[in-house]
Amino acid sequence: MIDDLISRMLKGDKRAVARLITLVENDDEKAREIVKKIYKYTGNAHVIGITGPPGSGKSTLLDKLIKVTRGEGNIVGVIAIDPTSPFTGGALLGDRIRMQRHSTDPGVFIRSMATRGSLGGLAKATNDAIKVLDAFGCDVIFVETVGVGQIEVDIVKTADTVVLTTVPGLGDDIQAIKAGLMEIADIFVINKADKEGVEATVFELELMLDLEKEKWAKRGWRPPIIKTIATSTKGIQELWDAIKRHREFLEESNEIKQKRKFRVEEEVKTIVSSMIAKRIGEKMQDDELMYLIDKILSRELDPYSAAEVVLEKSLGVKV
Amino acid sequence: MIDDLISRMLKGDKRAVARLITLVENDDEKAREIVKKIYKYTGNAHVIGITGPPGSGKSTLLDKLIKVTRGEGNIVGVIAIDPTSPFTGGALLGDRIRMQRHSTDPGVFIRSMATRGSLGGLAKATNDAIKVLDAFGCDVIFVETVGVGQIEVDIVKTADTVVLTTVPGLGDDIQAIKAGLMEIADIFVINKADKEGVEATVFELELMLDLEKEKWAKRGWRPPIIKTIATSTKGIQELWDAIKRHREFLEESNEIKQKRKFRVEEEVKTIVSSMIAKRIGEKMQDDELMYLIDKILSRELDPYSAAEVVLEKSLGVKV
Repeated sequence: MIDDLISRMLKGDKRAVARLITLVENDDEKAREIVKKIYKYTGNAHVIGITGPPGSGKSTLLDKLIKVTRGEGNIVGVIAIDPTSPFTGGALLGDRIRMQRHSTDPGVFIRSMATRGSLGGLAKATNDAIKVLDAFGCDVIFVETVGVGQIEVDIVKTADTVVLTTVPGLGDDIQAIKAGLMEIADIFVINKADKEGVEATVFELELMLDLEKEKWAKRGWRPPIIKTIATSTKGIQELWDAIKRHREFLEESNEIKQKRKFRVEEEVKTIVSSMIAKRIGEKMQDDELMYLIDKILSRELDPYSAAEVVLEKSLGVKV
Repeated sequence: MIDDLISRMLKGDKRAVARLITLVENDDEKAREIVKKIYKYTGNAHVIGITGPPGSGKSTLLDKLIKVTRGEGNIVGVIAIDPTSPFTGGALLGDRIRMQRHSTDPGVFIRSMATRGSLGGLAKATNDAIKVLDAFGCDVIFVETVGVGQIEVDIVKTADTVVLTTVPGLGDDIQAIKAGLMEIADIFVINKADKEGVEATVFELELMLDLEKEKWAKRGWRPPIIKTIATSTKGIQELWDAIKRHREFLEESNEIKQKRKFRVEEEVKTIVSSMIAKRIGEKMQDDELMYLIDKILSRELDPYSAAEVVLEKSLGVKV
């Protein structure tokens, strides 16, 4: 079945792509089989991460970016990372729904990935979905995250090009988040650039970038700041041009090799963790684990000693 | 040295507390030793997680909550989870600085934890710091997160009581985040309740809560919605009263046992992962790993097959 799906995917069948992504998302064993089989077809897509604080209009921006990118004849993949909840069941949000209209275009594939399950699970599923889209023939893959936490950063920072969006006039919390994301950004976007305070935000960003002047000079790339109004397409072409310039820079400077080395390293780590979690689940009976937990709750055992027991029992590892 | 620090901490020495937290944060081996030794003194603190989207005024709210809590004679610990960056070096933000004024009070201990290092690293360090504060004698420990990503949720959801803050009139992204956090909240706070749209936000939250009516009835606790204006202390006492009522509910319903079981389980998992990561680092030479990564980059090997090699070489585990 998997071989059949793969050969259909390689012929451009979008439904086969959807099925393969569902499989890598839900079944670890199948994910392993699929990635092993498609890996040789990957490595061509330009992966672009788009992140930034909530309310910075990422989905609207992406909607417009897809249009510009498609206009140049690229096959486009989109992975939108969604927080999930039993309340919404991962239902699509307004902005995301607008983006979905591109789905009828045979050259655009859009997929939402939910943060259900474990931390590592989402990162692994995203990695594997990128590979499916890459093998499918996507020239460009956008990975968009709604959140701004560590996991989103971890996912986005493995992209070739990271676009960080912000909006004018946000408070302290946003500053903190911006700071946390600052060092991973290749391009800054100030969206909603018709709002008050846009010049102050540009100034502030330039100031932060100036602190690292030597780094940029040495590297040959200083992150540009692009002002956009995504609702009116203003600045979208400039943004796309900046993304392409960054891609050229990566190729010329050979930085793309380092980036991909880093991505592969992170990927292997993620797979290792998920394999170990699975092994522990197989080897430790639920009641054995519960016994340990009861001991911890009654303070007869501490969590570290319990972890030592788990490692020895499930993996035969002594620490 | 550790024994000395622990005995000083047990006598109420805040500097010893600070030293111990630094040790659990930076040194896995010492963390293990410290937690093993202090674990018997823990289990008394009420752990309260405070989370919510950026800009919802969590730090200001917490600043006021500390005052009210202290006013009732409680020893208070605060762990503020910070995104870190080489730019800011984890420097304190405006709101956080205001909160720091409580640090001169011998009954208040405030600590920022940075998201440097790995995902699991922060969760583990936070767990261990909570234990130090608990053993120190804190009656109440607040854990505040700035971000709204999966890692922050994972940290906060192990608290006894989870307070979710929001503000009136936020967009789609915020809706998504609220949805993702919805099911972990024990108390909702609508801060900045003097802003336009507060009643609409209350209505919307009540509507979402109504969807789960049966769950609340069965459980015996429906999350209350508290309106606050943290800058003017309005609603703070009500919030603190709601937190205390939730604590009573946890004790009476025996739900506290389940909550703590869950927390301990998550904790053991976190420790296991970190021990395994360490073991792999010890057993695999850097050049062995680089060799595998080069093979992956040249498409001679895929990431799953590389992960299998890593597991077998470092842990002797065949998958």
